[in-house]
Amino acid sequence: MPTIRFFAAARDAAGTTLWQCDGTTVQQALDCAAQTFGQPLAQLLPYCTVMVNEEQADRTTTIDAGSEIALLPPVSGGAGSRIHCGILTVSDRASAGTYVDKTGPALETLLQAAAISVAKRALVPDEQAAIESTLRDWIAASIDVIFTNGGTGLSARDVTPEATRAVVERELPGIAEAMRSAGRQKNPLADLSRQVAGTAGRTLVINLPGSPTAATECLEAVLPLVEHAVTILRGTKDAHAN
Amino acid sequence: MPTIRFFAAARDAAGTTLWQCDGTTVQQALDCAAQTFGQPLAQLLPYCTVMVNEEQADRTTTIDAGSEIALLPPVSGGAGSRIHCGILTVSDRASAGTYVDKTGPALETLLQAAAISVAKRALVPDEQAAIESTLRDWIAASIDVIFTNGGTGLSARDVTPEATRAVVERELPGIAEAMRSAGRQKNPLADLSRQVAGTAGRTLVINLPGSPTAATECLEAVLPLVEHAVTILRGTKDAHAN
Amino acid sequence: MPTIRFFAAARDAAGTTLWQCDGTTVQQALDCAAQTFGQPLAQLLPYCTVMVNEEQADRTTTIDAGSEIALLPPVSGGAGSRIHCGILTVSDRASAGTYVDKTGPALETLLQAAAISVAKRALVPDEQAAIESTLRDWIAASIDVIFTNGGTGLSARDVTPEATRAVVERELPGIAEAMRSAGRQKNPLADLSRQVAGTAGRTLVINLPGSPTAATECLEAVLPLVEHAVTILRGTKDAHAN
Repeated sequence: MPTIRFFAAARDAAGTTLWQCDGTTVQQALDCAAQTFGQPLAQLLPYCTVMVNEEQADRTTTIDAGSEIALLPPVSGGAGSRIHCGILTVSDRASAGTYVDKTGPALETLLQAAAISVAKRALVPDEQAAIESTLRDWIAASIDVIFTNGGTGLSARDVTPEATRAVVERELPGIAEAMRSAGRQKNPLADLSRQVAGTAGRTLVINLPGSPTAATECLEAVLPLVEHAVTILRGTKDAHAN
Repeated sequence: MPTIRFFAAARDAAGTTLWQCDGTTVQQALDCAAQTFGQPLAQLLPYCTVMVNEEQADRTTTIDAGSEIALLPPVSGGAGSRIHCGILTVSDRASAGTYVDKTGPALETLLQAAAISVAKRALVPDEQAAIESTLRDWIAASIDVIFTNGGTGLSARDVTPEATRAVVERELPGIAEAMRSAGRQKNPLADLSRQVAGTAGRTLVINLPGSPTAATECLEAVLPLVEHAVTILRGTKDAHAN
Repeated sequence: MPTIRFFAAARDAAGTTLWQCDGTTVQQALDCAAQTFGQPLAQLLPYCTVMVNEEQADRTTTIDAGSEIALLPPVSGGAGSRIHCGILTVSDRASAGTYVDKTGPALETLLQAAAISVAKRALVPDEQAAIESTLRDWIAASIDVIFTNGGTGLSARDVTPEATRAVVERELPGIAEAMRSAGRQKNPLADLSRQVAGTAGRTLVINLPGSPTAATECLEAVLPLVEHAVTILRGTKDAHAN
């Protein structure tokens, strides 16, 4: 029989992670789930992204006994499942008060426009211990995604990549490659950025460069994958708990 | 005097690796080799790729006393020198029998069309020990190239990159970059794949993602370099043995 | 008050690194600096690149009390501040005299055309100890940038990336990515190059591939960022010394 794997709020509504369903199309399987689990799930279904055997699908996709339907609620949609991010500005000058941080506010504007809630904001000097400590606090607080900005260059004081590597459990080289690849089109200096990305627990950490222009360009390059990554990481955490 | 470096089947036919030749063009040098080493080599020569001082050349290229001609037989051509690959599907669900592996067969079709022989097929769960063990067996069996599929994402169970890194001696970051760069054009989520590639002994190991579409797209992106890599790795092994 | 940060020759001319200035535009701040520090600085100012808060700016850019103006002299311009590079050819055959190195001279021609002085040239076999030793000597001699060529492939003898990694303190993955990305457009085999880049002290080290064509293409891909990187690294060194 085909199977539905519920993610995040869909799992909460269904009260289970995996469930065997009936039907020969996605729509029939979802109707069957709505009847079984009732209102909370039925209300969420129209807004869910559907994948069949790990490929994006729509309601008319046909399924067979071996199919697994993944049901992904809109992460940044409903209150409970909205993405919560932290913005960590790393700058000696800004933290000493001799310069007003313009990158943090620029990122905040862009993230709010993307319906991502900015739950944490901090400003630390280019000190590895201070950066690591803030990252660890926010990871412990289950922030979905942390965007650092600054400290990724060649100067002796630039240590954000080192602090990030000390904290993440798994690196995601593709995110850094995508940001540099996007930056390279506009500015050859983008390739001097040593920015990294990775995951720690259920938190995604992404280094952005220090200048407002470069940081917002990099954020725009990876925003389309942040929501998907957060959905998977939330599932991962719960999979652990189960 | 110019030198010919014989690779793989050409070396077997000549019975030597390096040989000093005469002539002021590639064609003259090859004629000279054919006369010296006889039929087995003469039959192979028309099908060989020729490089002069590490750059692709043709039969009319002029050579001098310092030139080194590399003679590379068509790897996927003749029976003895055909590329042998292994396809390792990594999937909890497929190995538990709750899902039929579609990615392995899709890769097999594509590889056979490219005249690459599929010498090994296996299906293991997302367990690092099981993945490593299969990789090591196939490397010991001198499989030319191993394509894994699955287990490269963000989920807690995804450990294929870790298993691969534990097995390879040298990473080839360009192969992973090329696959993500190709994937990025079509799907921003491609950058969440942590796939790696590298070499162990004379075996090339390449991680592909889990979905049939993404895996075949990635394979197509790197297929043009696989034959060349295998030729070099076969030469490397023999260079060691000599 | 706005601040000017003087780099390299500008710092030598001003006799200081950081200086608080007056004015509401970059031009006014520079006029103010010229009056204070006199001829040596005034003569240099028209040739300097100006950045305000880490973004490229021109003389009409407005500034406020929190602005920091970075003043970057033309590195490859004046005699004292010209970039000095080293070219290290890594090749068993060339160092044994059985092949004449063509890549080193091709790079030298290109670098001189870019107004970069070739201060060091050497040829070593594919031996990790020999490569490391030359790199360390040139780093100790404060060479601005070292271009190696050769030894980045898959052969057992290729160890240039390993030698480079043993010497650099921080890797710059974007430089290697940019070179492979440029190479990939022309030759799929570019992705087999394991070339790396990084910094050691105030020296930038960049691996280029072995063939003259590939090496010059890679150099052209990263030349636009070399001057900027050297400026920052020179600033870094002096920041340390101060």
